[in-house]
Amino acid sequence: MNCYQVRTDLALEARECAKESDEEIRGVRLEEDYDEEIEVKTTRVIIETKNGAKAVGKPMGTYITLEAPRLADPDEDYHREISEKLAEQIKCILPQTDSALSVLVVGLGNREVTADALGPESVDNLLITRHMVKEFGIAAYHRTTNLISAIVPGVMAQTGMESLEIIKGIVQESKPDAILVIDALAARSVKRLNRTIQVTNTGIHPGSGVGNHRSAITMENLLVPVIAIGIPMVVDAATIVGDALQDMARKEGIQIPVESMNNRIMTELNNMYVTGKDIDATVKRLSFTISEALNMALKHPDQEETECCGKA
Amino acid sequence: MNCYQVRTDLALEARECAKESDEEIRGVRLEEDYDEEIEVKTTRVIIETKNGAKAVGKPMGTYITLEAPRLADPDEDYHREISEKLAEQIKCILPQTDSALSVLVVGLGNREVTADALGPESVDNLLITRHMVKEFGIAAYHRTTNLISAIVPGVMAQTGMESLEIIKGIVQESKPDAILVIDALAARSVKRLNRTIQVTNTGIHPGSGVGNHRSAITMENLLVPVIAIGIPMVVDAATIVGDALQDMARKEGIQIPVESMNNRIMTELNNMYVTGKDIDATVKRLSFTISEALNMALKHPDQEETECCGKA
Amino acid sequence: MNCYQVRTDLALEARECAKESDEEIRGVRLEEDYDEEIEVKTTRVIIETKNGAKAVGKPMGTYITLEAPRLADPDEDYHREISEKLAEQIKCILPQTDSALSVLVVGLGNREVTADALGPESVDNLLITRHMVKEFGIAAYHRTTNLISAIVPGVMAQTGMESLEIIKGIVQESKPDAILVIDALAARSVKRLNRTIQVTNTGIHPGSGVGNHRSAITMENLLVPVIAIGIPMVVDAATIVGDALQDMARKEGIQIPVESMNNRIMTELNNMYVTGKDIDATVKRLSFTISEALNMALKHPDQEETECCGKA
Amino acid sequence: MNCYQVRTDLALEARECAKESDEEIRGVRLEEDYDEEIEVKTTRVIIETKNGAKAVGKPMGTYITLEAPRLADPDEDYHREISEKLAEQIKCILPQTDSALSVLVVGLGNREVTADALGPESVDNLLITRHMVKEFGIAAYHRTTNLISAIVPGVMAQTGMESLEIIKGIVQESKPDAILVIDALAARSVKRLNRTIQVTNTGIHPGSGVGNHRSAITMENLLVPVIAIGIPMVVDAATIVGDALQDMARKEGIQIPVESMNNRIMTELNNMYVTGKDIDATVKRLSFTISEALNMALKHPDQEETECCGKA
Repeated sequence: MNCYQVRTDLALEARECAKESDEEIRGVRLEEDYDEEIEVKTTRVIIETKNGAKAVGKPMGTYITLEAPRLADPDEDYHREISEKLAEQIKCILPQTDSALSVLVVGLGNREVTADALGPESVDNLLITRHMVKEFGIAAYHRTTNLISAIVPGVMAQTGMESLEIIKGIVQESKPDAILVIDALAARSVKRLNRTIQVTNTGIHPGSGVGNHRSAITMENLLVPVIAIGIPMVVDAATIVGDALQDMARKEGIQIPVESMNNRIMTELNNMYVTGKDIDATVKRLSFTISEALNMALKHPDQEETECCGKA
Repeated sequence: MNCYQVRTDLALEARECAKESDEEIRGVRLEEDYDEEIEVKTTRVIIETKNGAKAVGKPMGTYITLEAPRLADPDEDYHREISEKLAEQIKCILPQTDSALSVLVVGLGNREVTADALGPESVDNLLITRHMVKEFGIAAYHRTTNLISAIVPGVMAQTGMESLEIIKGIVQESKPDAILVIDALAARSVKRLNRTIQVTNTGIHPGSGVGNHRSAITMENLLVPVIAIGIPMVVDAATIVGDALQDMARKEGIQIPVESMNNRIMTELNNMYVTGKDIDATVKRLSFTISEALNMALKHPDQEETECCGKA
Repeated sequence: MNCYQVRTDLALEARECAKESDEEIRGVRLEEDYDEEIEVKTTRVIIETKNGAKAVGKPMGTYITLEAPRLADPDEDYHREISEKLAEQIKCILPQTDSALSVLVVGLGNREVTADALGPESVDNLLITRHMVKEFGIAAYHRTTNLISAIVPGVMAQTGMESLEIIKGIVQESKPDAILVIDALAARSVKRLNRTIQVTNTGIHPGSGVGNHRSAITMENLLVPVIAIGIPMVVDAATIVGDALQDMARKEGIQIPVESMNNRIMTELNNMYVTGKDIDATVKRLSFTISEALNMALKHPDQEETECCGKA
Repeated sequence: MNCYQVRTDLALEARECAKESDEEIRGVRLEEDYDEEIEVKTTRVIIETKNGAKAVGKPMGTYITLEAPRLADPDEDYHREISEKLAEQIKCILPQTDSALSVLVVGLGNREVTADALGPESVDNLLITRHMVKEFGIAAYHRTTNLISAIVPGVMAQTGMESLEIIKGIVQESKPDAILVIDALAARSVKRLNRTIQVTNTGIHPGSGVGNHRSAITMENLLVPVIAIGIPMVVDAATIVGDALQDMARKEGIQIPVESMNNRIMTELNNMYVTGKDIDATVKRLSFTISEALNMALKHPDQEETECCGKA
């Protein structure tokens, strides 16, 4: 596959577009795993070199993708089995320590736009503990507990500030050990919507997500590890149209100056996205799957030897 | 223009698709008017015969469309000048009487999906008076006042009932003289989104709107006049792709069995729609424009001789 | 206890106020039960005669009260054990049948006022099935399933209609076998807030609840059984002040014309209520406890011999 | 008046409680003004000395109170005339400059609790400009425009952080010239609810407001001027009961050890507040009055000579 224009937040899709044939891309390692019982395919794309990053169009780092078709189905328990799988991955990518960890969870996106509300809604169901530990002391808890805080910064049209400015300030004041950012993503393919979870240690980059956060929310900018968790909720309208046109051209065997044709369409479709009609139920369900995973992953400092997948 | 597949709630667009050339369609009358000061083009499509209805694919009746490019811009006063224009049109299409009128306003759509929340949000800002008049009597008001009531029935996934069932029951109990239904519409063209208002006396039909109301909300079913007010907030994803493909085929001079090509795409895009990224601000603004228009149109029984446009 | 002015929606409290001493009230039967494991005290107040109704100030019928101190504590599982207990009681009070039951759940109250949002929020988490069964048939389900529908009618200031008018219309159209009404209640004692659940087959009466529904939502008016489920979320401000004054007078041994004293205070406190500062978390938690109980109680027609408490 | 226990955020009420008789309190200056046309009484309490602060129980600074009975009535225009009056007062208390001013508006309180949502809802309707000016430059605007940014920090139970921590961080990053904090207040008297606006240059102090912000949001802590705007939306439940008891004791001529009597009641009423049943409509209306005032006051740098009340 050779994608004329890549607009995806999924490293998995970006990698597919980047490779000419079946051969591997230099500097990009791939690990796959399939859990038959819960039907989850886990893929780790590890971009190890600058050349790899250039080829894929994503920063160096680890991108874990859970493909879970079941996520698309309603479930009274909000897919607890997938939350558990996700919790495992989050634990592995968090700084490893056996004392209490202070984690700031950031719910990016616009609560007022359903397809962009995944971050804010995930935060609504988190167990927040930092203020309790600060007030009553860790001793008040049966086991050592992590210090969880959270913020929903809102979007630039609401605040007049970039998300990075807000988060940076809060990080300087509250000094967490790590940041977990949750955001709604854009995929290239409709088929990946609402059933793919990406976890990465590279943070959030300009132009990512449904909204527009502009300045990168990364360890480089914030000086603490930034782990981003996202689920694709939309596809760019221009991407869908472009793909259909390219597909047709290929089948008809015609050479088209795609650019010229697209120009008109693309301008019109700028800032438009494609989403499903039951997006409200989808966001409600998936935000629970994420918040449950975070509650599991963050509840207690992990004193057992976690055998992190792919780290052995 | 010859639209292979029409999926639009705007009679204006359906009519454009229906006519082979510039000639008129029999049984379909067209009246146009332009207000330079506020830059609003008013079009009345009047479908007068069954043949006209068949040609256009819309039921017989009057469809008034206000095209108001300014609506797309933010405005501190929520475009009061357009609300006034809309209020005029609503007054003209409401049953004419000089005694108090009892009107039930229905906000169709799903409040939890931003692009579908136009109806519910418009209802939030209405002046509701029915219960006051019932309690204190009309005499308590300086002038005769209309009796305004309102309901947001929700969507089938939330209620397990069709909107028609809910409305029908309420109409039987509360016996309004007329029903005003507000709904988010689907347009064919991205250019019409958020800047076109349609007012019609034909009600709401299956498959209309962003959501799915199934059974027609019409005078035939409810036995009182049903006026529907809508603004297109989305375009069907399949429509956008189909149009782009057709456009390309025409330009390339190739004959394509559009159906076969589209089949794959269309299945995938079923129940997907295209909308803008600032849909939250758009809905907030436009719902105010509509509710203000209703508040103006419904406040008092109109004792002056309203000179209704197109009725002289 | 002799309560000069009874303003409580709890039959339990009304009965306490009604009796002069420890003796029983004629026409009012009392059954008590304590579940040690989950610390829930279940009381059934059965008002059997008109005299009993007059003495207690509540209509004839059965009032089941679960007193569950644990409800006041946060719990990750939203007190599933109490939901189970509540589900049992609901099953017993619902019409007994072994075929599918059609139930309309009504979420009374004002979603925009936190203390009054218990009904609407409980409905948000219900499993709605009526439209699915209507579309795909009962055969599509593994076991026979009940037909659940739901409505949040809103309050009179929003709709201009009494809740009864709306519900009555919907009942006539959708013809359910039973109605389940959920509402936030007012208690007399602060100690009962947020930890007491009342289930009754007498419906909802004027002046009940936090809001104001005016006309009784009862079997008499709707012609199908009406079961009301409520949790006290507020205390009337006037009640709290009145009780404090009376208490003081008693202790000081003075005779006060309570009426005259209260007059000034009461007018001022009219339409004021007392509620807790963490009412948002409370409503969120308790609405889950109720919706889970309903989902359990309504999921499938009960084909086992349910041994209803107090019915043997 | 001699208030045994003062729990009010209004300096006006605190001062009334503090003075033994009609004589003035040393170190506390009072200026009054009445606008007959719009029926607004403006009072400026200026606490000039530490002794004055101790006597009144409020920090040194200026407290402007607008008492506007009309605020309690609905109004289609959200009381534009009172917004104008308030805008004037805000302009006077803001740092005086004729170049563009950068202002961070903070909406304190809990959006999920209606009586505490005044701050968040006021921010929803603000004109946010900072990001536009940053992107397009001041030159893009017809006149010089101020840079308005805004944040709704949430409450400690949601974030695990004190509001001060969040605001402090954001201030350090975004470097505004002044901070405007909007918060729902607690009054002593039910009569002041929803019709009194307080503007002060002393910020927000621990225990103020409906929620609990703990650490003072003041110039001292933030190093830029902090102006607080608030409207009393609740009365502490304990205050209402205490006042009623004291009143009764006085009338009966009895000496009561108020403390002992109250102890029981007060513990029970701890963290309970009294509010009105139509609090949703009230908050909606008043948040518009405030946001309109801010939009007027902040729109453009004031290049005319503002003749500030009480400053001549």
